[in-house]
Amino acid sequence: GGGFLRRANEGSLHEIFNRYATVNKNGEKFMTAEDFVIKYLKLLDDQNYNKDTVKLLAAIVDTSKDGLISYPEFQAFEGLLCFPDALYKTAFQLFDTNGNGMVSFSEFVEVMKKTELHRKIPFNMDSPFIQLYFGKDKSRVVSYNEFSQFLHDFHEEYAIEGFRRADTNGSGFISLSAFQEIMTSIKSHLLTKQVQSHLIEAATISQGGSRVSFPYFIAFNSLLNNMELVKRIYLNVTNGHRTQEVSKEEFMHSAQAMSQMTPLEVDILFQLCDVLHQTGYVSDFI
Amino acid sequence: GGGFLRRANEGSLHEIFNRYATVNKNGEKFMTAEDFVIKYLKLLDDQNYNKDTVKLLAAIVDTSKDGLISYPEFQAFEGLLCFPDALYKTAFQLFDTNGNGMVSFSEFVEVMKKTELHRKIPFNMDSPFIQLYFGKDKSRVVSYNEFSQFLHDFHEEYAIEGFRRADTNGSGFISLSAFQEIMTSIKSHLLTKQVQSHLIEAATISQGGSRVSFPYFIAFNSLLNNMELVKRIYLNVTNGHRTQEVSKEEFMHSAQAMSQMTPLEVDILFQLCDVLHQTGYVSDFI
Repeated sequence: GGGFLRRANEGSLHEIFNRYATVNKNGEKFMTAEDFVIKYLKLLDDQNYNKDTVKLLAAIVDTSKDGLISYPEFQAFEGLLCFPDALYKTAFQLFDTNGNGMVSFSEFVEVMKKTELHRKIPFNMDSPFIQLYFGKDKSRVVSYNEFSQFLHDFHEEYAIEGFRRADTNGSGFISLSAFQEIMTSIKSHLLTKQVQSHLIEAATISQGGSRVSFPYFIAFNSLLNNMELVKRIYLNVTNGHRTQEVSKEEFMHSAQAMSQMTPLEVDILFQLCDVLHQTGYVSDFI
Repeated sequence: GGGFLRRANEGSLHEIFNRYATVNKNGEKFMTAEDFVIKYLKLLDDQNYNKDTVKLLAAIVDTSKDGLISYPEFQAFEGLLCFPDALYKTAFQLFDTNGNGMVSFSEFVEVMKKTELHRKIPFNMDSPFIQLYFGKDKSRVVSYNEFSQFLHDFHEEYAIEGFRRADTNGSGFISLSAFQEIMTSIKSHLLTKQVQSHLIEAATISQGGSRVSFPYFIAFNSLLNNMELVKRIYLNVTNGHRTQEVSKEEFMHSAQAMSQMTPLEVDILFQLCDVLHQTGYVSDFI
């Protein structure tokens, strides 16, 4: 869904830029990092913001990395936002701190270390995962396309790292509260409000106790990653009807015919439906 | 698609069993492992078969693990095959060699070591991946549902292990022939004949040289895992038409709106279409 984004009107874009640009250099106007992040985007509290964060965010647009945003840079960023992969492109420019079109290991670490997430759950920068992407000696630089894949996998790996840290004695289980903490810290973008507020309840019912196993943890995450597939399986069973109740057996039958969804993922799906709607049916959950 | 499987007719099932059962014990008939695997299923060459393989396969049905298949066991297996998750259930019974309803680490190793795949590409049984499922001291036993998730992830992990072994100097790259070897050994169930015979060609075009990077490797596998999602994205762009040509930009737009497909995955998809059909369009590839 959704239409393609149209470019902004040239005249009004320039007018906006001039309104916020406070630096004048040889007759050319520039935005400072604060102009862009605090005054224009209003991304952070204007009384109490972290200067490093402001610099980091402004550098996404400041592709020449000279500390100031020119009008051509501002305009190019507006153009970038109209691309379908704008989110990936923005993320890449955030991590490509020297603007050379590649992300190095040290650039990646430099940005990650400034995140709230890394402060909460530190990521092991010497892990085999990092070595596979940046090479054993971490000297390999990564292109835009490759970095998009890296970021995607990094989220999954981060969740596993979270599990490993919480499973202090290596039993293969973590506590319910650790499960909630990891999911809300690392996977919040996949959680609806409803699922987020029922995380512990769902895991309790499913695991029949006070801890979460690794297979459950992985299946839960895999389910959230594949909600589009889940929808398709559901609609395949109901012949496109969106309010029909579907039994677990019917769903499983369709899931196996179309995909590799595991029985554990199907179990968790129906348990979530139970928790959120107190019925054993998929229908309007998805 | 596809209807539910109906149970076999009781009389004819018994007749089939009696035709192949060569052991008679106190008036009750039993199939030997050879009766079942070689004579009835004709799974292996009857002149030149591996006895261990025959025993392993027969033990899936011989749930009492006494070395003989009774009629109730034969009948129960026929029933199991009618379940939508028959493949997962069969795999579980293959690995649950003592028939206690759980799979231990030693059972898993025992079966894996007998596979052709493990002989070709040995899997590191001390890896952190194994520890997450079986616990640090590998003493944890795994239930059916959990094992289904394990098997699913094991395939992914095996591919990564294959990459790591082929990347001998830890550069983050493997050769084209190693790429082909890993894909056909570990992921053949996801490769159509057409894709299989164009693997090297596709990777050469995409990587512009003689080696395959880790991000490419992962994106390629992720694409194959998510073909149902790819179909859905395609049909979303074409409004359900199955022969309409779709440009990369249109596809990417729909992909980002619906899913987390990465730009690299979309690239690979269009390169595959190029290789298989010499056009830049998705249309009838999927």
